[in-house]
Amino acid sequence: MTGRTPFSELRARMSPASQARATAKSGLLEQEMALAELRRAMKLSQEEIAAALNINQASVARMEKRTDMYIGTLRRFVQAMGGELDIIARFPDRQIRIDQFRDLAAPEG
Amino acid sequence: MTGRTPFSELRARMSPASQARATAKSGLLEQEMALAELRRAMKLSQEEIAAALNINQASVARMEKRTDMYIGTLRRFVQAMGGELDIIARFPDRQIRIDQFRDLAAPEG
Repeated sequence: MTGRTPFSELRARMSPASQARATAKSGLLEQEMALAELRRAMKLSQEEIAAALNINQASVARMEKRTDMYIGTLRRFVQAMGGELDIIARFPDRQIRIDQFRDLAAPEG
Repeated sequence: MTGRTPFSELRARMSPASQARATAKSGLLEQEMALAELRRAMKLSQEEIAAALNINQASVARMEKRTDMYIGTLRRFVQAMGGELDIIARFPDRQIRIDQFRDLAAPEG
């Protein structure tokens, strides 16, 4: 309540494209992780993800071992960690965000 | 054969992260497209994608209408257009490339 806006909040107000540019400039885009690694980096337990997704912990453990899954399933997992999923088709001369799989907030089951 | 290396080739030799940074700087990351739109932008027909994926044209048409699909399926579609698929979890303060779904070049059926 000091009247100052935290950096993280300013950052969150930027458009996805601006965020991507700022992140790329800072070099953070280099990080690559598997899902379990990312979850641990976010200091979240399998139980917490399970609660957010309304599934059990064993299902989260199984998801973290999968080498393929539906985009919608992955999106919900990433959203449960507080993030957003971007699907990018990368070509030598351009990069396109594929927006066809968005806005599928339909709950499972 | 003039001894000069085309820009597109130099670009292709950069690491994915460097490409992403360079593309982001140029502002091209802003582009968002659906699969069919992207295919047309790459000047490819449904028949050409079908031939590359060893499926028929009607299957390509159906894929382009889907609002969810397996990451592996989308990756093969993007590769058939000459691109690579990047799966990015975007947070306010960082961006992580999820590498768990890579290297799944196993052909279908």
